[in-house]
Amino acid sequence: MTMNDFERFLNNRMNAFGNDPVSEAMRYAMEGGKRFRPRILFSILRGMGIDPGKGYEAALALEMIQAYSLVHDDLPAMDNDDLRRGKPTVHKAFGEDIAILAGDALLTHSFGVLAKSAYPDDIKAKMVADFSSYAGMSGMVYGQLLDLTTDIPSLDEKRLYEIQVNKTGGLFRIACLSAMYLNCEERKDWYLELGARIGVLFQNQDDLFDIIRSEEEMGKSLSDLKNEKPSAIALYDKDELTAIIDREFDELYAFLDDASFDPKPLSEVLETMRRR
Amino acid sequence: MTMNDFERFLNNRMNAFGNDPVSEAMRYAMEGGKRFRPRILFSILRGMGIDPGKGYEAALALEMIQAYSLVHDDLPAMDNDDLRRGKPTVHKAFGEDIAILAGDALLTHSFGVLAKSAYPDDIKAKMVADFSSYAGMSGMVYGQLLDLTTDIPSLDEKRLYEIQVNKTGGLFRIACLSAMYLNCEERKDWYLELGARIGVLFQNQDDLFDIIRSEEEMGKSLSDLKNEKPSAIALYDKDELTAIIDREFDELYAFLDDASFDPKPLSEVLETMRRR
Repeated sequence: MTMNDFERFLNNRMNAFGNDPVSEAMRYAMEGGKRFRPRILFSILRGMGIDPGKGYEAALALEMIQAYSLVHDDLPAMDNDDLRRGKPTVHKAFGEDIAILAGDALLTHSFGVLAKSAYPDDIKAKMVADFSSYAGMSGMVYGQLLDLTTDIPSLDEKRLYEIQVNKTGGLFRIACLSAMYLNCEERKDWYLELGARIGVLFQNQDDLFDIIRSEEEMGKSLSDLKNEKPSAIALYDKDELTAIIDREFDELYAFLDDASFDPKPLSEVLETMRRR
Repeated sequence: MTMNDFERFLNNRMNAFGNDPVSEAMRYAMEGGKRFRPRILFSILRGMGIDPGKGYEAALALEMIQAYSLVHDDLPAMDNDDLRRGKPTVHKAFGEDIAILAGDALLTHSFGVLAKSAYPDDIKAKMVADFSSYAGMSGMVYGQLLDLTTDIPSLDEKRLYEIQVNKTGGLFRIACLSAMYLNCEERKDWYLELGARIGVLFQNQDDLFDIIRSEEEMGKSLSDLKNEKPSAIALYDKDELTAIIDREFDELYAFLDDASFDPKPLSEVLETMRRR
């Protein structure tokens, strides 16, 4: 219900852009996402007794940042991917120049969504500040940089955590902080830790899926995958990573004992994440 | 005095980023700019009787957006330029992946500069909203798109204005609107028109310099230049463009008769722009 409603909200807002190639590419980049970060945000709001609809604007801004990061990551100079969610990547479908501009436009307008939202001005200011930090050099972009520059033989547990907590944790932290601001709370360290834990788990799961897929497809060998990027795959085998993920889920549920909101809606979303 | 002081402010803020390659590339991209947009902002503030220092945070955010746009414009998939301000472009000096990330980080943190500034929350919200619009699809990015997609034989006066007012006018509009907000005024249409006039003039001047340089260097012929991009060069010769610029300066000074501030400091900056 909420997710269909949010999807309509998102499409309405994206349809307000024009019919030019950059606007088309922006909408294309926003299609088909699983909306995990919005789900996390909405479920925390629900546990706080706040209408999830109050989170739509923050969630839209988050999805725009997520979409821009994928468009730019897929570029030939970055990961050079041709496919994303089973469709040609934006630069394959629209050309590299339009892809760069569409990513820039999504990022630029994500902040406009927050600034033009119905939130009170003080919350707008705090959100813009945190979106900027955790999508930037205190989060996602910094994580991308570590991802690009970490020498795989030198990768250890500590460095892996640093990559995960920035690259993937950044946007999950934003989701959790957005809920906190909408509840007029100031327990920032706790919500940052919550976002970090969810983000690291999410990334470990993604890495596990890569291992499983490589075994099933027999195409790309696991040793190739191990040397490809500084991920959990370089450090752990399938059983080890499965055990880590199980432990992290248990620790996350224990961490939620300290929540100032009813953790049940969030736990339900985490369970669907666990079973994805 | 103000400009040296602003440069110190800018360098201090940029030095707060790390020692990683993306932070280095961000600082490199910020070096050597002529700071025209900050100059415009500071001179309007001075005419309002407001300390130009009050505009530093908005001006820094503007310069970060200007710098990001140049880094991404210079990329191989865009204008493919090797030199900028006499130095290797960011992707030549740091690699294309770092250049993409540095541009993304500059854009991301420009909004953080506004949100973490000393401005009141309502002004922060208005500034973030307008920076987003006029650096995005109601301004700069839209102008870039028109620049990429306009077929030169179809270029006419109207389309040329649309390109200039968005691509170059976008950030000058932001400079003028920032001054307006700091003066707690609401004459938005007038300040948008002021920014548009300055931006179009600035772009026409840049195009005239390209014509003059091509004549002096004898390297690139003017006919090459005419077919290269949808600029004033495609429509006018040197004498015609000189006359247009002179007329636009006269009209701009007449427009300033309606200013709610003392136009003298701004006129002085415009005169240095005229003689550049």
